[in-house]
This record gives sequence, structure tokens and C-alpha cells, in this order.
Amino acid sequence: MVRVAVYGASGYTGLELLRLLARHPEAEVTALVSRQEDRPSIAEVHPSLRGVLDGLCLESLSPDEVAERADFAFACLPHAASAETCAALLGRGLKVVDLSADYRLTDRAVYEQWYGVTHPDPERIGKTPYGLPELYRDAIRGASLVANPGCYPTSAILPLAPLLKAGLIAPAGIVVDSATGVSGGGRTPKPVFHFPEANESYMAYGVGTHRHMPEIDQVLGDACGADLEVVFTPHLAPMDRGILSTCYADPVGDASSEALTAALREAYADEPFVTVVDASPSTKHVAHTNRVQIFAKRVRGKAVVVCAIDNLIKGASGAAVQNFNLMQGYAETTALD
Amino acid sequence: MVRVAVYGASGYTGLELLRLLARHPEAEVTALVSRQEDRPSIAEVHPSLRGVLDGLCLESLSPDEVAERADFAFACLPHAASAETCAALLGRGLKVVDLSADYRLTDRAVYEQWYGVTHPDPERIGKTPYGLPELYRDAIRGASLVANPGCYPTSAILPLAPLLKAGLIAPAGIVVDSATGVSGGGRTPKPVFHFPEANESYMAYGVGTHRHMPEIDQVLGDACGADLEVVFTPHLAPMDRGILSTCYADPVGDASSEALTAALREAYADEPFVTVVDASPSTKHVAHTNRVQIFAKRVRGKAVVVCAIDNLIKGASGAAVQNFNLMQGYAETTALD
Amino acid sequence: MVRVAVYGASGYTGLELLRLLARHPEAEVTALVSRQEDRPSIAEVHPSLRGVLDGLCLESLSPDEVAERADFAFACLPHAASAETCAALLGRGLKVVDLSADYRLTDRAVYEQWYGVTHPDPERIGKTPYGLPELYRDAIRGASLVANPGCYPTSAILPLAPLLKAGLIAPAGIVVDSATGVSGGGRTPKPVFHFPEANESYMAYGVGTHRHMPEIDQVLGDACGADLEVVFTPHLAPMDRGILSTCYADPVGDASSEALTAALREAYADEPFVTVVDASPSTKHVAHTNRVQIFAKRVRGKAVVVCAIDNLIKGASGAAVQNFNLMQGYAETTALD
Amino acid sequence: MVRVAVYGASGYTGLELLRLLARHPEAEVTALVSRQEDRPSIAEVHPSLRGVLDGLCLESLSPDEVAERADFAFACLPHAASAETCAALLGRGLKVVDLSADYRLTDRAVYEQWYGVTHPDPERIGKTPYGLPELYRDAIRGASLVANPGCYPTSAILPLAPLLKAGLIAPAGIVVDSATGVSGGGRTPKPVFHFPEANESYMAYGVGTHRHMPEIDQVLGDACGADLEVVFTPHLAPMDRGILSTCYADPVGDASSEALTAALREAYADEPFVTVVDASPSTKHVAHTNRVQIFAKRVRGKAVVVCAIDNLIKGASGAAVQNFNLMQGYAETTALD
Repeated sequence: MVRVAVYGASGYTGLELLRLLARHPEAEVTALVSRQEDRPSIAEVHPSLRGVLDGLCLESLSPDEVAERADFAFACLPHAASAETCAALLGRGLKVVDLSADYRLTDRAVYEQWYGVTHPDPERIGKTPYGLPELYRDAIRGASLVANPGCYPTSAILPLAPLLKAGLIAPAGIVVDSATGVSGGGRTPKPVFHFPEANESYMAYGVGTHRHMPEIDQVLGDACGADLEVVFTPHLAPMDRGILSTCYADPVGDASSEALTAALREAYADEPFVTVVDASPSTKHVAHTNRVQIFAKRVRGKAVVVCAIDNLIKGASGAAVQNFNLMQGYAETTALD
Repeated sequence: MVRVAVYGASGYTGLELLRLLARHPEAEVTALVSRQEDRPSIAEVHPSLRGVLDGLCLESLSPDEVAERADFAFACLPHAASAETCAALLGRGLKVVDLSADYRLTDRAVYEQWYGVTHPDPERIGKTPYGLPELYRDAIRGASLVANPGCYPTSAILPLAPLLKAGLIAPAGIVVDSATGVSGGGRTPKPVFHFPEANESYMAYGVGTHRHMPEIDQVLGDACGADLEVVFTPHLAPMDRGILSTCYADPVGDASSEALTAALREAYADEPFVTVVDASPSTKHVAHTNRVQIFAKRVRGKAVVVCAIDNLIKGASGAAVQNFNLMQGYAETTALD
Repeated sequence: MVRVAVYGASGYTGLELLRLLARHPEAEVTALVSRQEDRPSIAEVHPSLRGVLDGLCLESLSPDEVAERADFAFACLPHAASAETCAALLGRGLKVVDLSADYRLTDRAVYEQWYGVTHPDPERIGKTPYGLPELYRDAIRGASLVANPGCYPTSAILPLAPLLKAGLIAPAGIVVDSATGVSGGGRTPKPVFHFPEANESYMAYGVGTHRHMPEIDQVLGDACGADLEVVFTPHLAPMDRGILSTCYADPVGDASSEALTAALREAYADEPFVTVVDASPSTKHVAHTNRVQIFAKRVRGKAVVVCAIDNLIKGASGAAVQNFNLMQGYAETTALD
Repeated sequence: MVRVAVYGASGYTGLELLRLLARHPEAEVTALVSRQEDRPSIAEVHPSLRGVLDGLCLESLSPDEVAERADFAFACLPHAASAETCAALLGRGLKVVDLSADYRLTDRAVYEQWYGVTHPDPERIGKTPYGLPELYRDAIRGASLVANPGCYPTSAILPLAPLLKAGLIAPAGIVVDSATGVSGGGRTPKPVFHFPEANESYMAYGVGTHRHMPEIDQVLGDACGADLEVVFTPHLAPMDRGILSTCYADPVGDASSEALTAALREAYADEPFVTVVDASPSTKHVAHTNRVQIFAKRVRGKAVVVCAIDNLIKGASGAAVQNFNLMQGYAETTALD
């Protein structure tokens, strides 16, 4: 049994993480760390945890206090704040999964350009494994710090990386057109997420400016050994959760639907959470699970590859638990099936 | 006052058409034609018309009977059945807006390949104006038959045609990624449109096989004088109505965001229903209206153009009334503002 | 043509009001009054008005300035602020429809108890007609100030008042169980209206404490000439708009389904917006209209009466225009059909 | 490990049951029984089970064949068909949880009147425990057949039974006003459940005719030892899942909010799945769980009691697993937390 601390438990990724950890036979949540001074119970913050985790409170704890209570930490914090916390915990011997963007990008300059802050832990950036087990399982296994991937990048990298590796699509000119449920925007009320604005509404946002774009570039570039720049357009769909990414790439030569599908099948043959399907998936088919469904088809001059995940599970907290399992040496699917 | 018959009033486009015609000062609906023999009142078929159009019944009428009662007809019928009806009515002196796909494609062979039927009125296919006033207003004005555009094509053609005409984007390699509300699938219950399947769900469908693909090809090709093939992927979003199309094209030369926007502004400066906007629009911003909002931006190596319409109004019944207004010589915006 | 000022145009009732007034042949909106100093255009505030009402700006205007520009005002303001504004405008010769609660309750003490403020215009409270034309048409016709009803009260009073008047149900023990769309909560983002909280969620709120409770008491009491106290429970449903109230009352004697229905039919025989229906209505059947659908049935020991309205139209801005039409002597249905 | 057969796995309760059983450490699903002759895999029928239960197929099996493969069966079948199947399986030594209505009512005449069929297993009706462990745990423990409760009855009985037992509310005049998500209507597409009809819609249905009404009567009557007749109105809300029942009863004497709450707290102090809460719950707070949240308040002359459950879990498949656990002697919460 490992003692676990969660930073930032009051958001949606925090909630999903607590639900998963409550079911995990090897994890005991011993600290919920927050800046709130009034120690609200977690069931006040998340009424869906009433009767489930009534005893736990959000507490304002120092890294020393956390180190006394926990061996492992999940950081669901804003960028910059997260790296600062991670550094403090790692220095006190904890292992950490960081759910922020702080350690995902390997190039400090790119990070500082897109996030507009000085990186608080420059030593570890570039040396931290990217927590997508399907691509970096071995590096994750031995790590004490893992950078949990962004939700959109997960949905774009998993369908495209094997095709790039197999040389079936060209690195140049890739388009990633994605739709997310509104929980992807976090739990803070804002006009764009106000129900009567977001409901019955579908919109593009952050056109050309979303911070997940360089993250996709980097990991896909790593997959094929070439620099590349994707064009990524996120959309907000009127639903709670789920991401569907429809990716368009220039096929190399005659790459057929069958060839695309076969390459994906081969890449994911042994993966516990990825299924290559014969019909276009829906976000609903993977909602509330850590599963991934991928579909590929050649359409005229393009390879079209569609990927569905749950943005809060495989796109955040489920991946975090998957990384936790690998880092701790548990069965990778524990608490996730 | 013109006497109007509506075929296929029991569907969603029929309902929207009746709502618009009920407000139209020059139109009097005198016949609702259907195969239903039991003459249901339209308010039974559409409970939202209770108290609005109580008096009208769906009737099984022959073309001769319709010709006695009406001067103008709207055909909201399945393809093939529609052309048959249109031919019969035109032969009896009525003017017709056909909301089916029967007269949209100009090449009979393409029609028969994509729709899998022999065209019932081969003489008129290829000679019927495509009912997008923003592109073909003059031809519509003098016509007795107009082919009302498909919903997706409207949302793809309006943002792309001016950029092709202006030579700012290349005809090759265009991607149209669209999301529609579920009313786009019609009023017949099917598993994919069953609420607990469609709600909280976002999915691609008809990948590479949707019949609106050749329609987009044709009209965009006409706009730029070159053959082209778009890659079109429709998606189903969990909302009643609206289409948002996010289009990706290769810019010619240095075409900037400003150049793209300026070309669109110029093309639509005098259009009553089209607005070029400075921020990405939402389907909600045009819901229940005949309006179009378009946004353009250069993102890395692509021109990204986003267009929002209401699939049932500008994508179907509003456009039909706009065409009716032009064909009859009324102010184009009558009953539509 | 009457010149119209709208206070509080940035909210949802303001938006609906502007949409209706834009279609009204006798009204010209000449002033949008707000505290915002930066004069945003209304199309910035409501992107759905782009191309529709581009020219108008929100302005911070004094009552004197408004009096120069307008003859009639609609006040969509918070309570207390509203009465203050109404008094200032009435003193300058304008006619006013007040959409706040300030003049609805006739007893100043009840108002001050439920709203927790001193009434800013005590002379007019108790002397202002309640703007439900179906009950108070004559008083509204001659008035210079009308108190526009609350959304829930409209949906509870219309189905119950005729049955109380006819002596078919008892005044004691009435239960009103209502569900509203989220636009009923206004346009200010709050946690309870955050999409991922409100979507896929149905909840009761304000149990026993909602301010519309005394308003229902008062008007129903007036209808039957007896003091009464209803038990009112509002619920939040995951939809944009609409109210459905399911009302339970003790029938007097043998009052059957037929008797209940007949009394409602008789009461509303000449009403342009009220339809008594034979099957339970849905909010969707009246959405985006000023219409009301009512259904009644005897179930065991209770009379069950169900009423559907659109909360923003018949429950707010449509009723306001209906009152405007009556006060100005226009046809009552102008701009509302 | 017990071998389990599921009848009717293609519906929503079947899907939820399979999800729960897949996680149950003591259950192995060995047969999915269906009339479909083409042996579809369960992952074709439920795409969300792709990768989860790929190996299982729906098979048309005789009771003898099922008896060879399974020790326990869950019947998710239409009424009448269900009892016939249950009788056949019980005769072959299996234990059964029946999720249909066939064994819930204890009076055969009432069953036959409300369901319009002759009961196929009259010997067992009236002798089968009602599967609500919170009320009938001991009887369930020893049973080989359990009648799983209706979804609405669960949401009405749990809040009301303790108050009736405690003498705090009167048996006469109880009103139960409930809203359900659309999955409650099953998986067969019908017009009322077609997305564009059900979305943005809230409606009452089955007013005074719903078959769960006599079920509520019976169990509440049993709780207080008096015959009673509730007035029950179900509503359809635009969401996938969840039931919220708002119940109105006449308090006995001065029964205060505190007294009502205390009686509920006492009744459910040791229950693993029931929480009495201080603020009105939302269906979302219990979605995807077997949990129940109850809130009580005295409002004027009525006791108002609100109860939220997930219609598919505590209202169907979760309760079935809870009963399974009791019948088999497992920890009651196995696979449910």
C-alpha cells in the first residue's frame, strides 16, 4: 500500500483521480493539498463523493508535511506552480506524476515561449519521460517524475505516431481537427462555459494558438525523427466529456485504408487500452474509461485517422494512474478496467 | 399573395418552412401534400404548430389537384421522388424550389453514381440554377425551378468560394471538417439518433462517402474554373441544430489572415445574410436564423476558414424562402429577418 | 412608430426583447441603457445580433437623456434598481414595462420581507397592473406602468386560476412542481450553471424559499378571492429554455378530467396565445414562442394540471411585448406570431 | 467464482450489468442469452465494450443449455417473457435476479390489471422478496429468486418509507413528481426518444397511468401497514441518466425539517449506499454509481422529500448486483464502490 497525496483535487481531473484511486487496491489517499485555509471536506467540494470519501479534507500543507504523510504525489496544478511543487516533493524523496504541462515539452525555450513564464525547474525539463505508455513505457517504468500528456496530444499522437513511424504518412501538412467536451475547460465558471452559451453550440477556439500544438509537434517529430508542424484546431462540443480528433495527413505513395489500419493494429496489438476499430468511433464509446478507439481510412488524397478518448480519463487522470502503476510496478491496468 | 404548396411537411425542414411561411406577408399555404391517407392536421404532426396552423391538414393530392390550389411549391421529398414531383408540377405551370439533391449536381452520371438511381428528369438536370443566391443570384431570379443547396455544401462553399476566386488558396488538397446538429439526420428515429446514443457523443460518420462531397466539388470547381476534389468529413454533435465547417486549404503564396479576411469581406459586403467576423463563430450565434458567420485565419502552412450556419434555415428552409423571394420578385429578406 | 429604450439589454431577457422589437413594425429601439462606460456595440455583447442590430451601442444614459430619445422603456434590471429607474422615467412621461419583480407584489411588506430591501417607489406598489393579459387585460390597456410577471408564476397561474375561479379545485394544499431551462438563471456565470455541472443534471433548488412563491400566492388568491399558500419547488433541467409546471390540487367534489379541461377551454377560448391540449405538452412545443400549452387530468385524488411556456418569451420578453402592444393600442399579437 | 448468465444484454440495463460484472471478482459471465440467431459479439452490440468483453457473443440458448453453463442468472427481459424464463431457470437449480416487473407486485390481480397479461408463474408471485435491501435485506439473503425494484419506485420508496414508518407523514395524499433521463425509456428508437425531439425538452408523460404507481403503493403501504394510493407523475428530462423524485406529503402534526431529516438519518445510518444530505441533491451527484442521496424539508403545509439515484445503477443493474451479492453471501458492496 502506497500513501498518496493529491494536489489540486478540487477540479475535474482531481475528482476523476480520486474516483480511480478510491478503487485502487494499492493506493491510500492520505493528503489533499490546497491553498484553501478552511479545510473543506472533499465531499463538500465534490458532492458526488458524499458517502465515498467523506473523511478527507482539503488542507494547506507544506512540502515537508506532505513528505511525512505520502510517498507518491499527483500534481493537478496550473503550469509553473506545478513544477515548483514537483521539485519540492522530488527533493523530499516522493515520486510524482505531474498532470500540468510543465515537463512535457523538452525544449525550455519552446515552453517559455508558449507558456509565457520562466520554467521553475529547468534541470528536469527535457529529462522527464512523457507519460504516454504506448510510446514511452520503458522510460516511465524507471522514473521518479513523469509528465502526464495533454488531453488533445494523446488523441492526436496515438493515431498518427504509428503511421509516421511506418512511413505511411508524410510529416508535413498534418491537420488535427479536434472536439472536446466542456469539462476540458476546467471547473472555473466562465462565460464561454456558461450552460446557456455552451449548450446547443459548437465552436472552434484557440485557432492557431492552442498550447497543445507544440506538444503534438514534439512527440510526433520524435516518433518519425523529423521536425514537423501540425495545424491543430480545437472545438468545444456541447457535452461533458470526451475528445474526438479527426486527423488528416498526406499518404506516402499508395497507402490504402487497409495498410493504414494494419499498421495501427500491429502497433497496438499488445496494448491493453487501445483498440483499432472498423467503424468510426464515438466519444461515448470510451466515455468514463481509459480506453482509446482508433479508425483509419484513405479518402481521396488524404489519410483520415479518427481517435476517441475520454478527456478526463485517458486524457488526464486515467493516464496518470496508468503511469503510477508503471512507476510502482503494479499491473498496468489496476483500477482502470 | 401567392398560393403555396408544401410537399413533405412532416419533417424538420417542412416544419421550419411552415414557420417561415406563416410569417411571410406574400405567401399563403394552401396545400400540404403527403402520402398519409388519414389527413392528420399539421398540429398533430408538429405539436409546436398547435394554435399556429391548426387548420391545415396533410393530404394525399395529385399534381392536378395541387395545380388547382397552388402557384408555387416547395418539395421536401427524398431524392428521385422529388424530381418526379417537380417535373409534374413544372409541367402544370407551378414554380418550384426543390429541397432535395435531385437538381444540384449538373452531371447526370455523377448524380446516378452517388445516389444510385436513374434520374427521373434528365432534361432539367444541368440546367437548373443552384440556389445559393450569394453565388447565383441572377440565375435564380429568372428561374421557375431552383435546386436548393445541401446544408453541408452551403457551409463549405460560402467560406471557400471567394478565396478560390481570389486565387488566395489552392484548389487541390482542401479539407472540410464539419459538425452538424442531429436534426440534420431527419425526423425518422434510428439507433444513431436515439437520444441516449447521440447525447454526450461526438462522432465522425460517412467518412469519405457522404453525398455532399461531389456537390461541394462541383460548386467550388465552378467558382475557380478548375476541377477539384475536397476531402469532407461530417460529424454528429449532440445538439439540435447548426453546422460549423472548419475548412483547411493550402494558401497561395503569402496569403495572410488579413488578406483572407479582406477577400471574404469584399465578396460579401452587400450580402444581407453573411457576416465576416473577427472571432471564431459558434453555431449558436446563427441558430434559428438565415444568417452566416465566417472567420478566416492563416495558421502555419494552412488557411483555416470557419463557417457557421443553422442547418435547417440557411442550410435548408431559409435558403428556400430566400430563393422563393428572388423567384417571385419580393424583397430577398422577407420573412427571414 | 414609437421610440423605445431598453435597460439591461446585455442579459438573456434583453436579447430576446431586442429580437422581438427588431421585428416589431411600430417600435424603433433608440437607446440601450447600461452602466458600461465603454459603449460596447450590442453585437459584441450578443454575437447572435451581428448583422442584425450592429449599429446600436450600450450607453450609460441619465433618465433625462433617455427621455429625450424614447417614449417607452423596458426595464430588465435587478429588483430595487428597477423601481428606481421606472419612477424616474414615469416622472418624465415615458410609459414603462418593468420586467423585474418590483411592482408585482401588491403588499409592500411582503415585498420587503421576500426581497430584503426597502421598496424605492412605495406609491406605485399595489397600484400597478400585473402584466398577465389573460387575467388583467383591461387594467393593462390603460396603464403607463405594467409589472411583467415572473416566469414561474406565469406557468403556474395560467393553468390554476381558471380552475380556482370555477370552483373545481380547492385553494388549500396546492403543489407547484416546476422545471426550468438554465437561461432562467441569467447570464452571469456561476458554478451551478457551469456547463459540466448543469449538463446531465436535474436538481431541485430554492426548496421553500423561492421568491416567486408569494407572487403565485397573491395572483391565485386574487383569482379565487381567498388567501392561499402554494408549495412551490423549482428544478433546474439541462436545457437552454422552457418551463414546465406540473401542478397538483385537491379537486372539489367529483371534478373529472373532462370538467377540468372544459373549464380551461372556456377560460381561454379567445386567447391568442393559450392552447388547451389533449396530451401532456413538452417545453419544446412552445420554445421560442409566446405560446402556452395546458393539459389537465384527474389522477386518483388529485387534479393534475401541466403547463408549458418558454421562460424567456411568454415568461419574460414576449409577455413584455404583449403588454407593450396593449398599452400602445397595437394588435396584441404584433411581433409575437 | 460463480458462473453467470445474462438475458437481454443488448439493452441499457444489460450493458450496465455487464460493466459491473466485468469488475466483480466472484462473477464470471459465461452466457449472454438472446433470440438473435446470428451470434453477434457483445462488442458489436455495445461498441463501448470493445476491448473489454470482446470474446462474448449473444446466443440463442435453451434453459437446459444455460443450466449447463451457469449457476446464476440475471433476467433483463420484457414482463411476462421474464417470469417464464425465471421459472424455467429456477426449476433447473439456478438462482435468479429478475429485473422485470413480474415478481414485484404481490397481488396477481393487480399485476394482471396493470400489465394486461396473465401471469406466467402465479405460484411465485407474492412469495418473492422485493429486492430493495434497505427494506428487505433479510428476505433477500435467503432467496433463490429476487424481484429487482423499478427505477422510479426505488427513488420514491427510499425517501418516503422511513417517514411513513416513523409516523411523520400521512399515508393519504402523497404526490411523487419524478424526472428521469432518457435511458429509462430503453434502447429501442421511438419518436419521443429521437434526439431532436427529446433534447431541449422537458415533458410529463404517462400521467396517472404509469405501471410503477401500484408498485410504489404496495411497498409504501407495506412500510406503514396501511393501504395508500400515491399520485405519481413521471417526466422525461433531456439527459442520459438519473432520476430525481420530489415527493410531497402531509406532515403529521408539527413534523419539522429537522424531525424529517433525523428520521431519515436514523433509518439509513448503517446503509452503505444511502446518504441523507443537507442540500438538495442533483442526479449528477449519483450518476454512474449505486448511491442514493436524500434531502428533506418542511415547506409550509407539506413535507418535501427529494431523492436522487442513477436509474440504470441503483434503479436497475446496481441494485441487481447488490441483490446478487446478498444472495451469494458476498460483501454487499462488491463491484459497486
